Amino acid sequence: MNLSKVKEIYDSPLIESEINLGGWVRAFRANKFIELNDGSTIKNIQCVINDGIIGEDIIKRISVGCSLIITGILVNSIGKGQSFEINVSNIKLLGDSDPEEYPIQPKKHSFEFLREQSHLRIRTSTFSSVMRIRSKLAFSIHDYFNKNGFNYIHTPIITSSDAEGAGEMFKVTTLGKEDLAKKDVDYSDDFFGKKTSLTVSGQLEAETYALGLGNVYTFGPTFRAENSNTSRHASEFWMIEPEMAFYDLNDNMDLAESFVKHILKYILTECEEDLSFLEERLLKEESQKPQNERSNLSLIEKIKFTVNNEFTRVSYTEAFEILKSSNYNKKKKFKYLLDNWGSDLQSEHERFLVEKHFKSPVIIYDYPSKIKAFYMRLNEDDKTVRAMDVLFPGIGEIIGGSQREERLDILKKRMSDMGIDDKELWWYIDLRKYGTVPHSGFGLGFERMVMFCTGMSNIRDVIPYPRTPKNASF
Amino acid sequence: MNLSKVKEIYDSPLIESEINLGGWVRAFRANKFIELNDGSTIKNIQCVINDGIIGEDIIKRISVGCSLIITGILVNSIGKGQSFEINVSNIKLLGDSDPEEYPIQPKKHSFEFLREQSHLRIRTSTFSSVMRIRSKLAFSIHDYFNKNGFNYIHTPIITSSDAEGAGEMFKVTTLGKEDLAKKDVDYSDDFFGKKTSLTVSGQLEAETYALGLGNVYTFGPTFRAENSNTSRHASEFWMIEPEMAFYDLNDNMDLAESFVKHILKYILTECEEDLSFLEERLLKEESQKPQNERSNLSLIEKIKFTVNNEFTRVSYTEAFEILKSSNYNKKKKFKYLLDNWGSDLQSEHERFLVEKHFKSPVIIYDYPSKIKAFYMRLNEDDKTVRAMDVLFPGIGEIIGGSQREERLDILKKRMSDMGIDDKELWWYIDLRKYGTVPHSGFGLGFERMVMFCTGMSNIRDVIPYPRTPKNASF
Repeated sequence: MNLSKVKEIYDSPLIESEINLGGWVRAFRANKFIELNDGSTIKNIQCVINDGIIGEDIIKRISVGCSLIITGILVNSIGKGQSFEINVSNIKLLGDSDPEEYPIQPKKHSFEFLREQSHLRIRTSTFSSVMRIRSKLAFSIHDYFNKNGFNYIHTPIITSSDAEGAGEMFKVTTLGKEDLAKKDVDYSDDFFGKKTSLTVSGQLEAETYALGLGNVYTFGPTFRAENSNTSRHASEFWMIEPEMAFYDLNDNMDLAESFVKHILKYILTECEEDLSFLEERLLKEESQKPQNERSNLSLIEKIKFTVNNEFTRVSYTEAFEILKSSNYNKKKKFKYLLDNWGSDLQSEHERFLVEKHFKSPVIIYDYPSKIKAFYMRLNEDDKTVRAMDVLFPGIGEIIGGSQREERLDILKKRMSDMGIDDKELWWYIDLRKYGTVPHSGFGLGFERMVMFCTGMSNIRDVIPYPRTPKNASF
Repeated sequence: MNLSKVKEIYDSPLIESEINLGGWVRAFRANKFIELNDGSTIKNIQCVINDGIIGEDIIKRISVGCSLIITGILVNSIGKGQSFEINVSNIKLLGDSDPEEYPIQPKKHSFEFLREQSHLRIRTSTFSSVMRIRSKLAFSIHDYFNKNGFNYIHTPIITSSDAEGAGEMFKVTTLGKEDLAKKDVDYSDDFFGKKTSLTVSGQLEAETYALGLGNVYTFGPTFRAENSNTSRHASEFWMIEPEMAFYDLNDNMDLAESFVKHILKYILTECEEDLSFLEERLLKEESQKPQNERSNLSLIEKIKFTVNNEFTRVSYTEAFEILKSSNYNKKKKFKYLLDNWGSDLQSEHERFLVEKHFKSPVIIYDYPSKIKAFYMRLNEDDKTVRAMDVLFPGIGEIIGGSQREERLDILKKRMSDMGIDDKELWWYIDLRKYGTVPHSGFGLGFERMVMFCTGMSNIRDVIPYPRTPKNASF
């Protein structure tokens, strides 16, 4: 079927040419004007049915959601709102869509309602925009790493290691309930011969590959079995985790900044129309909120803010002092007041640093070791580690990373201090025995970046079929 | 740390410039010649230690697997085997590698042995080549679809649907053994409030997105809990599944051919050195086999065979007749003799068609409906479906796809005939109720393509950390 795409027509409209288009009706007015959409762009194309051209039997069946193949001539439009339109010569109606039954009508649906129609919500302007941006973001990530000599690796999804402690894990099993009911479940009978779970991170395996290939990255699904029903947490989400041999923390910060700037620039160029649409949607939504809950920056301004500003780098200790002595802390405007060095920063603190204090994205480094993971490199002071968090406007932390502890003795001590079984991670320890090198990496939650780029405030609305507590529909 | 990469030096050698390099020792001869590798390319770079330049204490510690930062001048080499080398002025030894303990010695290790050292095997030439090709293949796939206006979608990994029947599934649960011990396990208490498993395919969800966005593809992990310990099956593997609205089976075949030719051409251009290395490895391996077990084509010849030949398209019925009346069938050279129309083709039959009969890749279409899935579009003859399989030399089937059944009544009948619960797939059926369109798609097992491109004969050797029955190590 030699069909054109609506996007192709907008990109290079050949006036007076005959066109065949397949798509779905988004609106139908006066038995004459069809707004057709094929998903290739947010834009519809207006198709005009002149009197007597199309049989009444077909016209009667045209309704929102039905699928058509339209043949016609592309002509300049004299109407308002479009510069060209299709003068219809033929319509093939492929699939009806009963207006009494079709859930997606041309009116405002709540996101809650649309989540129950996840298989159809992709036919709305908002969700098609979000998902096109999601796709372009994913591509820009592969593009950046490929151009920069990184190897993409698939770390395992099913894992027998639960040592990283990044979160609660889902069990993976093929045991029947009789086996599982036994007093001491014998996992040696299970599929993999031991207890297995869904991965919470590919970092440790990525490290093994960095120490062979140099620069690598993962981009795959990760899982958390935490029963937290918030707008920012999903049980299944995708992560990007680059890992680089011979990188210290400064190299790591350089890479993180270059990386996010690349992907955001790419989105600004490639997704202009979808971004504009979502920006307007957001402005409308915010106009109904009280002044103090509105953003200072619009969606596109926020993206440009991160692209155009140098990321301010500040140690945890400096950041802590700034926050502690800020008016917000003194006047108790923070929900969590800062008092003692060593406490973790909350999103309100991170946003204060970015939006009020530095007015730029911020990278905080050298965090207290007590609030960070065992694999982060210990500093000389014996109380901080070479960790870093990248903070963005509107959301706070978007990237977390560190230089890894490459010294065998110190790693082993940290593991033992933190109660991590070094027998289980024998292979991770091996890396420090044979040709160990300084190395670093970071993690980016993909959905968090999609939310930042689309202005969507619920993670359920940036994943095609989100998985959250009590929800694994579709 | 401003380090060069070995690949950069080979790509544009600046003779007489000073270079800093980080990497691992692959060989050390005569206390003078270091072969250094940093993973950026299969090639090592020779680093020459002239007398008196480096202290004895350092030289003593240099051994295979240890990590160094080398500073020196790039000079033209007078030695054999390389056109330039590094005249070492300084060595920083970062990490020792005890020759008595380090498992990866400069000798031939069996792949079986290396599987037990999956965290270190990436430091060998063979595995680093395989994994660089794997990475480039993945990129070429994203690149192809991005260039052609496809949207990348992440379909869910955890699923509550087990209707597709592509294979045995792993259970995903957070229930404790007390819960599971109950006579009737109450999955409403489980994390998702129902029974959930790991996905076997993203196709059905991809279809929902194709019917909104037009052209989409998935590239994600899929799972099979089948207890089959073969060299071609893994419990966790990655699949690519494009799905296109308004595509009939011919469009689908066109896309499949264009797609695989694109990615194979990309590999031929981008991975020349790794391919040459693996080709030689394979020739050596095959030279030890009896003549009749060797391939007719070398690794690179096999890839070029698929790039340069038009794919022959033949219906199942024609293919069946060719096979049935072939000498191989008559003289019982096939293990599975073909007699009755309707039986499935085995890999030996597929390879016969490709390698002996047509001498080109082959696409077989219009398979008997009885041996294919419920969602494939039924032909007028009522006994075949619009399925297609793409067959490659050496392996047989590499891609399977179909035009999907878009007619509501026929789909429902097929589901009921095949015992598939249509209540569970209400959302899939909805697609046929509201604006249904002809659409098609196919699936490519990523690892099968990596095996084809690398000549590796065991799927365990093309996945960083393979998962197979009784094995989820690392």
